[in-house]
Amino acid sequence: MKVLVVFAHPEERSFNKSLLDSYVKHLESQGNEVKVSDLYKQNFKAVVDRDDFLNLDKDARLQVASASYGAFAAKQLTPDVVDEMDKLVWADTIVFHFPIWWFGMPAILKGWVDRVFACGFAYGTGEYTATRFGDRYGEGIFAGKKAFVVTTCGGSVEQYSDRGINGPIDHVLFTINHGLLFYTGCEVLPAIVIHRTDGRKEEGFKEAVDLVNERFDKFDSVEPINYRKQNFGDYEIPSLRLKEGLELPNESGYDIHIAKK
Amino acid sequence: MKVLVVFAHPEERSFNKSLLDSYVKHLESQGNEVKVSDLYKQNFKAVVDRDDFLNLDKDARLQVASASYGAFAAKQLTPDVVDEMDKLVWADTIVFHFPIWWFGMPAILKGWVDRVFACGFAYGTGEYTATRFGDRYGEGIFAGKKAFVVTTCGGSVEQYSDRGINGPIDHVLFTINHGLLFYTGCEVLPAIVIHRTDGRKEEGFKEAVDLVNERFDKFDSVEPINYRKQNFGDYEIPSLRLKEGLELPNESGYDIHIAKK
Repeated sequence: MKVLVVFAHPEERSFNKSLLDSYVKHLESQGNEVKVSDLYKQNFKAVVDRDDFLNLDKDARLQVASASYGAFAAKQLTPDVVDEMDKLVWADTIVFHFPIWWFGMPAILKGWVDRVFACGFAYGTGEYTATRFGDRYGEGIFAGKKAFVVTTCGGSVEQYSDRGINGPIDHVLFTINHGLLFYTGCEVLPAIVIHRTDGRKEEGFKEAVDLVNERFDKFDSVEPINYRKQNFGDYEIPSLRLKEGLELPNESGYDIHIAKK
Repeated sequence: MKVLVVFAHPEERSFNKSLLDSYVKHLESQGNEVKVSDLYKQNFKAVVDRDDFLNLDKDARLQVASASYGAFAAKQLTPDVVDEMDKLVWADTIVFHFPIWWFGMPAILKGWVDRVFACGFAYGTGEYTATRFGDRYGEGIFAGKKAFVVTTCGGSVEQYSDRGINGPIDHVLFTINHGLLFYTGCEVLPAIVIHRTDGRKEEGFKEAVDLVNERFDKFDSVEPINYRKQNFGDYEIPSLRLKEGLELPNESGYDIHIAKK
């Protein structure tokens, strides 16, 4: 395997960094290649601004999508962004590893997405016709790769369960799993979620390491989340509404975009 | 009204900035007080790190929640964060105004949340007993305030509709409306969402301005989203699972956390 881990935590001695070190070592011991984008260590610039687009006229109005598209096409994105793109293209497996802060990614990782998932690279590609709406949601730059989230959170399993007040964890992560990873063509494996991290002692840490290592050990047998592809008949084009009757009788919201076997 | 707008867009000549200027002018012309946290203009630091906690020992392991709690209690957060807290406390109305990038907030705004919503201020407050699980979800520092999102996006209304491939817009925004604004005690008004922004001409811009101005003109008559409060009997404590039978027969996921009248 060629694994890229995009990692976001500010502390070298954290639960998350120790977990990262453990599974990277495990992967390497089995002959896999691993690259880690340690965003805090890289001091990765988290904020999209005009400095990202080297060919943008200094007096031009910044429209992010079009500036991104123009700079990507002209090879005028900044070297830090290009490096991350190269690692993504190199990998066959992509892991986003971060603590859940306020029900989402730390800003440094969101900024990595905002900058690296450029127009013409991660979106805005492919044909827009009567039967296709671009290469996205099941097609795109990362087609053929697998991806998943490793994350920690303060809340309990129950608080993120089907009836939990935070919402189901798969819904909290939907804009990442479906909106970033599946959107760009990855097959998305279920997230590995470590709950109540701050209270964990040695045993709880070991349990987390085992969970992630087991994921890699049984990698090929893990079923991806069965998100519906956009351009294969399930959606009206261009409204991109799911055709009537495809979902189960009681499904609504995010759940209708996962096909049941 | 005393309105705080937390605004995140990098371009002075953008649709979003022009929209902001228009409704701020409208509000002020009617005698309201308005403060704007223009995060790009302020060059707001987007990334949580140990520099945020002035009393953290330089050799100490950084645990974000506890460092945040300790620095808030000791008045050892950085001045930029304290300024934002003061503005939040001052306001009776809070607006988060941003473009949707990759189904979420721009990183600079997520980082503002990560830094300003400190432990002891925005979370980790109140009593944890058999009947209460802290002051959150309907109680908290911002109780008595109203808040809402103003946002722009590339996708159409249909693509963000009940059957749309992006998921319903109210689900995409749930971790903001419910997870940030309601969590900290605000009454949350429905988001104002401007679709297909890049294609809009003068008329489409004016339509957006009218939408926001109308929101303020009819402010007191706008019904808040009826999220269920955490500590008032609807949830088991401490699992925070919604008690059985409270939702409508076909509801699941995020929707069960909104009580129907």
